[in-house]
Amino acid sequence: VVAFEDDVVDLAVLHGIGLVGDGIDPAVFCSPHLNALLAQGPEGWRAVRRDLRRALLDPGALPAGALVPLDQARLALPVAVGDFVDGYGGLHHATNMGRILRPDGPPLQPNWRHLPVSYHGRAATVVPSGTPIVRPRGQVMGEDGPHLVPTARLDIELEVGCVVGVGSELGRPVPIDAAADHLFGVVLLNDWSARDVQAFEYQPLGPFLAKSFATSVSHWVVTLDALEPYLVGGLAAAQEPAPLPYLRRLQPALWDLQLEVCLQTAAMRAAGQGPAVLSRTSFAESMYWSAVQQVAHATANGAALRPGDLFGSGTVSGPDDRHQAGSLMELSWGASRPVELPNGETRTFLEDGDTVVLRGGCGGTDQVAPTVALGEVAGTIVPAQG
Amino acid sequence: VVAFEDDVVDLAVLHGIGLVGDGIDPAVFCSPHLNALLAQGPEGWRAVRRDLRRALLDPGALPAGALVPLDQARLALPVAVGDFVDGYGGLHHATNMGRILRPDGPPLQPNWRHLPVSYHGRAATVVPSGTPIVRPRGQVMGEDGPHLVPTARLDIELEVGCVVGVGSELGRPVPIDAAADHLFGVVLLNDWSARDVQAFEYQPLGPFLAKSFATSVSHWVVTLDALEPYLVGGLAAAQEPAPLPYLRRLQPALWDLQLEVCLQTAAMRAAGQGPAVLSRTSFAESMYWSAVQQVAHATANGAALRPGDLFGSGTVSGPDDRHQAGSLMELSWGASRPVELPNGETRTFLEDGDTVVLRGGCGGTDQVAPTVALGEVAGTIVPAQG
Repeated sequence: VVAFEDDVVDLAVLHGIGLVGDGIDPAVFCSPHLNALLAQGPEGWRAVRRDLRRALLDPGALPAGALVPLDQARLALPVAVGDFVDGYGGLHHATNMGRILRPDGPPLQPNWRHLPVSYHGRAATVVPSGTPIVRPRGQVMGEDGPHLVPTARLDIELEVGCVVGVGSELGRPVPIDAAADHLFGVVLLNDWSARDVQAFEYQPLGPFLAKSFATSVSHWVVTLDALEPYLVGGLAAAQEPAPLPYLRRLQPALWDLQLEVCLQTAAMRAAGQGPAVLSRTSFAESMYWSAVQQVAHATANGAALRPGDLFGSGTVSGPDDRHQAGSLMELSWGASRPVELPNGETRTFLEDGDTVVLRGGCGGTDQVAPTVALGEVAGTIVPAQG
Repeated sequence: VVAFEDDVVDLAVLHGIGLVGDGIDPAVFCSPHLNALLAQGPEGWRAVRRDLRRALLDPGALPAGALVPLDQARLALPVAVGDFVDGYGGLHHATNMGRILRPDGPPLQPNWRHLPVSYHGRAATVVPSGTPIVRPRGQVMGEDGPHLVPTARLDIELEVGCVVGVGSELGRPVPIDAAADHLFGVVLLNDWSARDVQAFEYQPLGPFLAKSFATSVSHWVVTLDALEPYLVGGLAAAQEPAPLPYLRRLQPALWDLQLEVCLQTAAMRAAGQGPAVLSRTSFAESMYWSAVQQVAHATANGAALRPGDLFGSGTVSGPDDRHQAGSLMELSWGASRPVELPNGETRTFLEDGDTVVLRGGCGGTDQVAPTVALGEVAGTIVPAQG
């Protein structure tokens, strides 16, 4: 399905009457995920987009069932995720995390400016916007040893996710100038994190339970074609030192994308107050590494891509850590500086009943009415179970 | 398909004539992977195994096409891997790696005896035995900065992989005493590793390109039912300090499984010499953490399992690092002690043209004729491309 104003367009119906995707197997449009469409490659996606634009010039002429009101649709995960690779490509975020966690050393690790540091996350727990987030348990070190407890440092990470369209062959790196042809589109992504669990578990093999309980994504994948007019150089255009040739990209590779983090506590909800903005940031002024660099790096060793693979950008934080950061760890500076909410409540990390909403878009003066909206990704914290 | 002596049994043929899996959807037996059978749960697997035993009492009575000679079958990956979680649960291996890489500190990290340290690997690059392994490139730090070069420290990791049969629900941890019911069976696994790439990239989010180029598994999944008679306490029965209750398992949880690492160089192959044994080790005397503990830990935060998920044990190394280790890093002690081969060649890490064969089994006095064979997983190194 495709979003169109306040409706959902059923591509299977339009394909059935010959309006969209002529020559493409009908099964592609009846699948519960986009993966089969992704595998058609850019020519296939572009033909569908072109056909759809033409069909939607006169929506009144479409047959019954072609349009379903958005509020009657039950939205699901747009793709079956193959491998989920999460990055760490935000310059201010990585610098802030280094300052908070290793105050006596240089904030960035020696590798950080040379390669887009990344790790594999759990594909099974990528969930659609709206899925409740159960507060996870994990081992946290206490004075008398570790205990299995519900995390006391439940955090968000504001990220942009890139969905792979066309896969690549095992043993064949994707050159950076071909990387964009393998990407289909973009989602908003919340990489929920349990900071106390992460602190104890992450040496030497990286985060595991601290991240694997849930990663929320928005329902709609916005195509790279739709975002193409908003490509800018941003922070990634000023990489110093210059990256190795396999990561060098002279063309603009970031989107001029405005993002925001909003929080609604249970008390706010009870009082009829909507989510409050915690942070507003620019993707292009936050990210040092771009998605095409992530693809070129992830395949440099010959690793294969598959349709539906997901790359997370890493946390998007602007230079002002009080108002532009994409995590509570930064906004509260390691819980040393509680964030004040409009109703007088404060937060260091998330509490049960909190709803987090991430929003974003391109081309507007604010996130409320952008020209190209990325939609939103929302999740409410429910208490640990058992 | 199922292996039977020198033949491959086609379950679809036996199901079609009503001999196996009565009441199960025929599609389950026509799929290119075992996942649909795994999703049937233990009762389904056990019914198929029971039916099959009965049918194979008189193989001569089976119809044409039910048995295909093994040497005429083109063997593939047994399961479509959902998430691949790799462990680090070998006590001697983790101790050796700590001694080699951090000679001035305690060999084990503070978390190591409290939880089965694990990370997510790349599912897309799990490949069946026999797949050529292209020497991967990656960034390696030189005197004048990092370079993208073919790894000079290509290593193996001898592991046992556990395949998840029945999935679990998001938000619901799997109790340790129920963990075995979620596991279907076991494969041999070679977690190929580029040590120089890993050294530069792994801080702070763990290994990425150093592992993601390939993970080889054996063609046949040996069921946990077949291995059940070989369960022993082993090293995991003497955990000190006692793990937290969610990881405590009093019943034997390791298999009395003998494993070996063999290497055949190009020169050996040219001279008609078979693979030489580099290492022989006991799984039960090497592993501190068991597969059921890995499952209980990986789901303690509510993460969901899916049929076809794969858990790697971590490298299986016995106490004698010269003759029982599961990696060349240990056998050559960080390249300081070259391994001698029967023909006079030496190895620190793998060279192009080397073939590595891992073998294993239960119940025999050696790996050549075990009562339950895990088969083998083989791979030959081909030069970096481009």
